[in-house]
Amino acid sequence: MKAPLNPEWRIYARSASDDKAPIQALFTAIDALKAAKIPIGVNLKVFFEGEEEAGSPHLAQVFRENDDLLKGDVWILSDGPVNQTRRQQLYFGARGVTDLELTVYGPGRVLHDGHYGNWAPNPAAVLVDLLAHMRDANSHILIRGFYDDVRALTADEKQAIAQSPEVDAQLKQELGLAWTESAGSVLPLAITQPALNIRGIESGHVEEKAQNAISSTAKASIDFRLVPNQTPEHVHELVEKFITQQGFYIVRQTPDVEIRRQHARVIKVSWGPGYKAARTAMNDPAVRPVIQAMEQTLGTSVIKMPLLGGSVPMYLFTDVLKTPVVGLPIVNHDNNQHGANENLRLQNLWDGIEIFAGILAGAEKNWK
Amino acid sequence: MKAPLNPEWRIYARSASDDKAPIQALFTAIDALKAAKIPIGVNLKVFFEGEEEAGSPHLAQVFRENDDLLKGDVWILSDGPVNQTRRQQLYFGARGVTDLELTVYGPGRVLHDGHYGNWAPNPAAVLVDLLAHMRDANSHILIRGFYDDVRALTADEKQAIAQSPEVDAQLKQELGLAWTESAGSVLPLAITQPALNIRGIESGHVEEKAQNAISSTAKASIDFRLVPNQTPEHVHELVEKFITQQGFYIVRQTPDVEIRRQHARVIKVSWGPGYKAARTAMNDPAVRPVIQAMEQTLGTSVIKMPLLGGSVPMYLFTDVLKTPVVGLPIVNHDNNQHGANENLRLQNLWDGIEIFAGILAGAEKNWK
Repeated sequence: MKAPLNPEWRIYARSASDDKAPIQALFTAIDALKAAKIPIGVNLKVFFEGEEEAGSPHLAQVFRENDDLLKGDVWILSDGPVNQTRRQQLYFGARGVTDLELTVYGPGRVLHDGHYGNWAPNPAAVLVDLLAHMRDANSHILIRGFYDDVRALTADEKQAIAQSPEVDAQLKQELGLAWTESAGSVLPLAITQPALNIRGIESGHVEEKAQNAISSTAKASIDFRLVPNQTPEHVHELVEKFITQQGFYIVRQTPDVEIRRQHARVIKVSWGPGYKAARTAMNDPAVRPVIQAMEQTLGTSVIKMPLLGGSVPMYLFTDVLKTPVVGLPIVNHDNNQHGANENLRLQNLWDGIEIFAGILAGAEKNWK
Repeated sequence: MKAPLNPEWRIYARSASDDKAPIQALFTAIDALKAAKIPIGVNLKVFFEGEEEAGSPHLAQVFRENDDLLKGDVWILSDGPVNQTRRQQLYFGARGVTDLELTVYGPGRVLHDGHYGNWAPNPAAVLVDLLAHMRDANSHILIRGFYDDVRALTADEKQAIAQSPEVDAQLKQELGLAWTESAGSVLPLAITQPALNIRGIESGHVEEKAQNAISSTAKASIDFRLVPNQTPEHVHELVEKFITQQGFYIVRQTPDVEIRRQHARVIKVSWGPGYKAARTAMNDPAVRPVIQAMEQTLGTSVIKMPLLGGSVPMYLFTDVLKTPVVGLPIVNHDNNQHGANENLRLQNLWDGIEIFAGILAGAEKNWK
């Protein structure tokens, strides 16, 4: 007889968690129901999106063209992690996202920073100054009008956050943090606000590669996480207006020397694809059977979160298909998603199979 | 008969300008004087420093131990470029330098910036905020007390700057710049002030390598250019006091998780070797024969500059040997010194040979 698998073991593999795990869990659940001769108690439609990590540029079109096929009572989207406490959660929306690449230009060739330092504009200093004006150290975005579109939380959402388990202390311990940049807000509350993340910044060289030089360019990569009711289009407009007001001249292509001679603080701005946040009302009746099936399967209550911090294109379900959508993640939070050593904790896979089976069989637990 | 070499041709080679050119020019000048049977009219001492690019860590000791051997009326140091107008110049001092590496710490592992953005401290944002508080966009250093030690320019120095040729317009054209960060000061005046140069900044990734992630660290490499009478020691003290006042906890080694749990805004600060600026009085009588020989050789006046923007350890000559020192550069300003494609313009080499020969022969031009 084989020894049982330790449920704390992890499977390390590219995409082990994101997003192979829920796909595998769903199929295993269907196989298990079949093997146990338990009928599937719902009309099941399965939809796979292979371009989610690239911003789902074709999903809207596919939805529009297959609108009738894809309608339903509720869509369940299985991306993101379970709660940091390891408890199961449902999320009723997700932050949207829009990202941009910035390049600031200094002298046309790399200069000796002794001979030209504090005369030739240092592009790293110019970029640093722009970024520091865009957000403060507590993550508050200083771009004029940025919060104007942000919808206030509903009473349901506030209550859900208040009832969510406290995870900050554990996470700070785990991550070696003495503070958070959320000005005192706990994580579930913080992620209901928009974020300006500096994903990368690059100019010249540091440490053993450092040179006494003024670089020709400085680059930053940013993403904005959006919340209801912000739109990427309006955010682009506000950000570009802000950059212009900071004295920059915006270009879309690498500027030639003539443009650089004519304009101080030339900046190249390139937006990636993006999409807005989505929300399903926390009291939407279509979601109730899902909650019921999960709670009966698990024998415990699930955590309800207004928003997932990360972005998944849920708005296409609500806006194009006019169908409520909830997120039902099954993977562990410490899965190094998108990073090196991505992994899946076995117990999360077992739980995921059971939850999917419970939902598919209906709320009657007749399959156990 | 061979065609003459075009004086605008350039020799491309590592160190072609810095600092092989003056060494070769000096030896060629001596050979030429010998061949023409023109006696050397001065007592010549030659000193080669092979560690200049590494901050000359042993030069002070060598000077102290060989103090008697190295004394003289005046030392001529041949580093840096001629004026941007291509005219010959002498400089009576050089900015000092001290450099530091900064590392700011975020979460202990790279995090998904959707799930944790505006909660987990983003080290790039923290670093950007610190740097933006250190200097403004016009290169003014905002560190309290930074300018207290800066000696005002003498009347001689002011006059020399006023008489120096205008180079800003040409340089801005050449470098594709519509502005300078010197708040209106021309280059020769700007470099009489201290500089805070961001040599490099690095966190996460940009452009096609960008990831939706909060990095674990953000790094910056900085050098400060110092002017008389600043010292590296006092600058270190002021900078660290400033960093601490900005809410940082300074460490010297990579902090462990316990230190990161205990202190918000942990920063690693590492200073490299540095040295102070030096000056020789512009009316020092020992320098007069050098000027005279140069001007007789060239048949035109030379530009006198109070300070070279770049750093050479001239202070060891003035402070340890108690001997006046001037800088006599011979190489072209657009030589890509320290960068790719370093080069030497042939005419600069020819001029350098003639100038050295003129100085060695004395001011009599009897060798032409």
